[in-house]
Amino acid sequence: MQVELKGDERVDQLYRDDIQIIQSPSVFSFSLDAVLLANFADVKKSSKTKIVDLCSGNGAVGLFLAKKTAGHVTMIEIQSRLADMAERSIAMNDLTERYDVYNIPLKDSLTEINADSVDNIVCNPPYFEDLPNSKKNPNEHLALARHEITTSLEEILQISQKMLKMNGKFFMVHRPDRLPEILTKLTKNRLAPKRIQFAHSHDGDEANMVLIEAIKDGKPNGTRILPPIIIYDGLEYSKTIKELLYGNSTN
Amino acid sequence: MQVELKGDERVDQLYRDDIQIIQSPSVFSFSLDAVLLANFADVKKSSKTKIVDLCSGNGAVGLFLAKKTAGHVTMIEIQSRLADMAERSIAMNDLTERYDVYNIPLKDSLTEINADSVDNIVCNPPYFEDLPNSKKNPNEHLALARHEITTSLEEILQISQKMLKMNGKFFMVHRPDRLPEILTKLTKNRLAPKRIQFAHSHDGDEANMVLIEAIKDGKPNGTRILPPIIIYDGLEYSKTIKELLYGNSTN
Repeated sequence: MQVELKGDERVDQLYRDDIQIIQSPSVFSFSLDAVLLANFADVKKSSKTKIVDLCSGNGAVGLFLAKKTAGHVTMIEIQSRLADMAERSIAMNDLTERYDVYNIPLKDSLTEINADSVDNIVCNPPYFEDLPNSKKNPNEHLALARHEITTSLEEILQISQKMLKMNGKFFMVHRPDRLPEILTKLTKNRLAPKRIQFAHSHDGDEANMVLIEAIKDGKPNGTRILPPIIIYDGLEYSKTIKELLYGNSTN
Repeated sequence: MQVELKGDERVDQLYRDDIQIIQSPSVFSFSLDAVLLANFADVKKSSKTKIVDLCSGNGAVGLFLAKKTAGHVTMIEIQSRLADMAERSIAMNDLTERYDVYNIPLKDSLTEINADSVDNIVCNPPYFEDLPNSKKNPNEHLALARHEITTSLEEILQISQKMLKMNGKFFMVHRPDRLPEILTKLTKNRLAPKRIQFAHSHDGDEANMVLIEAIKDGKPNGTRILPPIIIYDGLEYSKTIKELLYGNSTN
């Protein structure tokens, strides 16, 4: 479907899955985090699956799941400009029948989505705490996407726990420097961390991203630490990342 | 110094540091965990340093620190057979002036070691919970070293927190499948996890060991995930591990 682009918007493509996404550098652009999270998320395939993308931004993570599941995907995004971009991207990819977007604050999402009804949640949340002295982007769109201004990790986990069915799975990408807090808060909110994978820019670097799967009311412990993802090989993307972006056939 | 060997004991050597250790397959033998922990532990160098090796077994971790610090090392071990092996290994390496061993339960260690007096703690604890249905080694020595029969992670952390000076560092090796519990309990006991490193048997395997540094009363978050350690390259030890075991010069 043909859709209108506004202002400085452009269309980017995830070649592997043939998904097109409206991006705007001045409000929000998805990055590798979204690609890695969508790849990591072990979502259910059947058409009966209910998936929620919390803090969806321009909808990248949810859209990247289109080929992995035949289920229904609901996006929750507080910023109307981003929710509007997500809606048009959904139309552009002919996914309106099984995708919808709610432009509401996270804390109101349980008025739209029933408790104990969701199979899988994906979440690429704001990474940084909103501390009194934290340096924020003067662009409000970017500040809201990066800092915990309108929501917090604690709130995200409380709501996720309520939405998920028993044994439903929660998938999140975050910063490893908050790992102890993340694992503590997951556990406190009845979300048992089951699979963890770190991403390192180069071989020999410290990790700069962490992917986490947690299961609602899962047994404690038994956590698996997957082999690490290495993003770059010299100045180029590594073979793993090229495959995620372009598929096996090209590049 | 020449010391007597008992029963099935033999002497193993850490070539890189020229340290000799009395081992016994029927009661306890140190393994790579101890070598990795001693290498990971960023202990203070000065002769005024006070270091405690909790759950010291035959003393391997503490002994492997001999070249890294000029400080005093105290070992705490509940099993008299192992404490005796540690004492003889200390004598064999001429370290009696700055090493001692207490053959006491962990819970009594604060009667021998003052609260808020220790710079660094190293700990290679029993890895497995003592669950009603957990399968234990019929050999009591090995069962005590592997299962939380006489102590628990919670007790180890409570006592460590009391022993350590403010900003003192705690170093532990453990199993990654208990990572959420470990990080939660560290945080609860005022020990802020600061550095984490995973070890994987082979490149592409899930992690099977985790090394953790925590700081007493350290700021939360700011946790660093170090580049992973890969143990084997095919059927041989990797270059990294060979260097730890044999040093740079040989093999």
